[in-house]
Amino acid sequence: MICDVLVIGAGVMGLSSAYHLKRLNPGKRVVLIERLGAPGQGSTAKSAGGYRNLLLSGTNRLLAEATIEWLRHIQTETEHDVKMHNTSYLYLLGESQYGRRKPLFEELGKAGVGLKTYDTGELKALIPDLVTDFGGDEEAEMMGLEPIEIGVQGLNCGSVDTDSLSRCLEALFLGLGGEVHYNTSADRLILGAEKELDLPGEPFVWQGAVVKGAETSRGEIRAETTVVAAGVWSERLLDPVGFDSMTRPKKRCMFVFKDPGLERLLYTKGFNEEGVLPVTQMSDAGVYLKAEASEGSLWLGVTEDLGRGYGLEDDPQAEMETYADNAYHALVKYLPCFEGVRPVNSWAGQRAINRFDKIPVVEGMPGLIYVGGATGNGIMKCESLGRVVAAHYAGEEEAELYGGRRVRVSDISVKDRRVEKERF
Amino acid sequence: MICDVLVIGAGVMGLSSAYHLKRLNPGKRVVLIERLGAPGQGSTAKSAGGYRNLLLSGTNRLLAEATIEWLRHIQTETEHDVKMHNTSYLYLLGESQYGRRKPLFEELGKAGVGLKTYDTGELKALIPDLVTDFGGDEEAEMMGLEPIEIGVQGLNCGSVDTDSLSRCLEALFLGLGGEVHYNTSADRLILGAEKELDLPGEPFVWQGAVVKGAETSRGEIRAETTVVAAGVWSERLLDPVGFDSMTRPKKRCMFVFKDPGLERLLYTKGFNEEGVLPVTQMSDAGVYLKAEASEGSLWLGVTEDLGRGYGLEDDPQAEMETYADNAYHALVKYLPCFEGVRPVNSWAGQRAINRFDKIPVVEGMPGLIYVGGATGNGIMKCESLGRVVAAHYAGEEEAELYGGRRVRVSDISVKDRRVEKERF
Repeated sequence: MICDVLVIGAGVMGLSSAYHLKRLNPGKRVVLIERLGAPGQGSTAKSAGGYRNLLLSGTNRLLAEATIEWLRHIQTETEHDVKMHNTSYLYLLGESQYGRRKPLFEELGKAGVGLKTYDTGELKALIPDLVTDFGGDEEAEMMGLEPIEIGVQGLNCGSVDTDSLSRCLEALFLGLGGEVHYNTSADRLILGAEKELDLPGEPFVWQGAVVKGAETSRGEIRAETTVVAAGVWSERLLDPVGFDSMTRPKKRCMFVFKDPGLERLLYTKGFNEEGVLPVTQMSDAGVYLKAEASEGSLWLGVTEDLGRGYGLEDDPQAEMETYADNAYHALVKYLPCFEGVRPVNSWAGQRAINRFDKIPVVEGMPGLIYVGGATGNGIMKCESLGRVVAAHYAGEEEAELYGGRRVRVSDISVKDRRVEKERF
Repeated sequence: MICDVLVIGAGVMGLSSAYHLKRLNPGKRVVLIERLGAPGQGSTAKSAGGYRNLLLSGTNRLLAEATIEWLRHIQTETEHDVKMHNTSYLYLLGESQYGRRKPLFEELGKAGVGLKTYDTGELKALIPDLVTDFGGDEEAEMMGLEPIEIGVQGLNCGSVDTDSLSRCLEALFLGLGGEVHYNTSADRLILGAEKELDLPGEPFVWQGAVVKGAETSRGEIRAETTVVAAGVWSERLLDPVGFDSMTRPKKRCMFVFKDPGLERLLYTKGFNEEGVLPVTQMSDAGVYLKAEASEGSLWLGVTEDLGRGYGLEDDPQAEMETYADNAYHALVKYLPCFEGVRPVNSWAGQRAINRFDKIPVVEGMPGLIYVGGATGNGIMKCESLGRVVAAHYAGEEEAELYGGRRVRVSDISVKDRRVEKERF
């Protein structure tokens, strides 16, 4: 097969890239391939779908805010339903955690990010299940758990349904005449020489190297430009070419709870119009919670940093002990309503972590554009990143994001990178 | 075994770190372990041993210049012989290569880096074997090879013998009472909790994680601080802990030539006091040459970038085709004296490439200091980096380098990194 642009990976990043490439180049044949059977079934499906504008790096926040604005437009002004719920984010913080984060919250406030704080009295009134103080609980003290001192709420935050978002992006792409091939895996990028001599072994070290498409499970697909948007699996394509994906894969486990004893927590009132618990980050417990009101469940993600190794898996699974023998110990101290409740479902995803500055990368080499490294923030930046990919393809200096704000394409490249490290 | 500081890896980076840690902490037990049987037998031994101060990033050049100054001190003012030969570096550049690099050379000149340029007439006079112009050679034209337009020489550049350097650093460390254990591999870092509860599964997600030493082939070694200086192999130790080494391994093949027909090239006069060919970078041919006068040979390194995959190997080997079916085609056009000459020896090393900014990393987490990412420049920065490791260990803001200049420790950390990307 021959096409103008081959996009590898139908997660939100690949879907958005394909859509914007086709939108801005209607005459070009844009082909999207995906090893799985439907859009957004890889790491996209394993994500909590959270979005937040609580980001300190200007470029990073811009990418997120424009995507959030677009999501709101899609939800309220089109026939698509991405199940966007602006339930807000809530950070429950102990003294030392808050001490570290206070200057960051202040910076966010100065940057115009909507925030609201709650003292422990207010938190207890709104979340009766929450223990903010371990007075007398020697075990909690021995564990080194800190009482919760403050709650900080991010207002322009919430979540979408990642499957609905994927199907929406797919529909937009297909509506423009884009082509999608599922169950089609990219096995290898085809690397050739800038000026081909038709000799075996090209490209030689004295030639310019060019990506000319990919060998796939359905045969060779030749393309003038290949976009690699395969998330954590991008390294499998890029490593053999000697192109660094700039990210490392790290697993993140998610557990789903559905229990009468958790309903009061799930339907926590007072934080948002939906009357549900915000996406709640409990750093001291190493977990976060998300209300999934449509199914009456609470999702619990375990935020492992050091202690969770890097390493790519084909089909990552959640280990029950990550909850039961690990996060659980601290969780029940803060939220005793979880005591004895077992998850009804679990899964694991993989984040593509850019440890250097935690900001996504759009970088090219002749014939190739790579987009990745969203560091677990892919959902909330996907629309913007697709636009950056399309601008990179067109050789434009700037990409216009949804809502009209602009970002310099080279700012999130590797070669001419110009971003503040994300410190939040 | 219990020690104060465990250093893993007796390449130049680990040796230098161990030496400076012991020098500044004479009362501490500093133990250096190495899986191989002698110092500097890993990637250090596979390196060309080149050094150069042709670096544009201020921090990067400072690290190199101080190390070069120290090497000169060792060579001229001590009983150690690291076989330092200030043969200079010579860049042979075609029009487009020079066009790209000219502003960089100008910046180097402004920064006080000693440079000298040669036009093609001068180059031909000094290197009679060199073809600067392919007039009439249709094959060279078809191959897209550019005639050489200019030679740029870096004066404070040359090479050392990496084995001698390793033995020198080892002797310095042992002379202070340091301990070295060879044939001792580190299999796994021991990760524990900041406040241990003696429960299985620590550290839990709600605990602070601390490195407490390593499991080695000679049993557990507990240490207050573990320094990982295992080069490209560092990722094997750091990945399971979830700590990013920030580098990717890339193989680099070296070929050795010893032939009467190459002697005129080897003993090229006029560039240095030794009367040998400078370390000569031929970017258009994808190779560099180094005169090894002590053995009457020329070393040829193949500079593969894209086209050479990333990937860690235990015992990398040079593939003959990398020379014979690849670099050779272009090399003989520029240097016909190589025609028909086969290498008498070859090997391969691995560079730990930090693709983001090409500058080394010294980063810590509780109980751990990691040094790496020198991107093929480890020899020429090792002495400085050992000092940065020791300053990091002491919690000092700045490290004093050889000669008295200072570098801010956090500048080459990941967390608070403040370096210009290396553009040369």
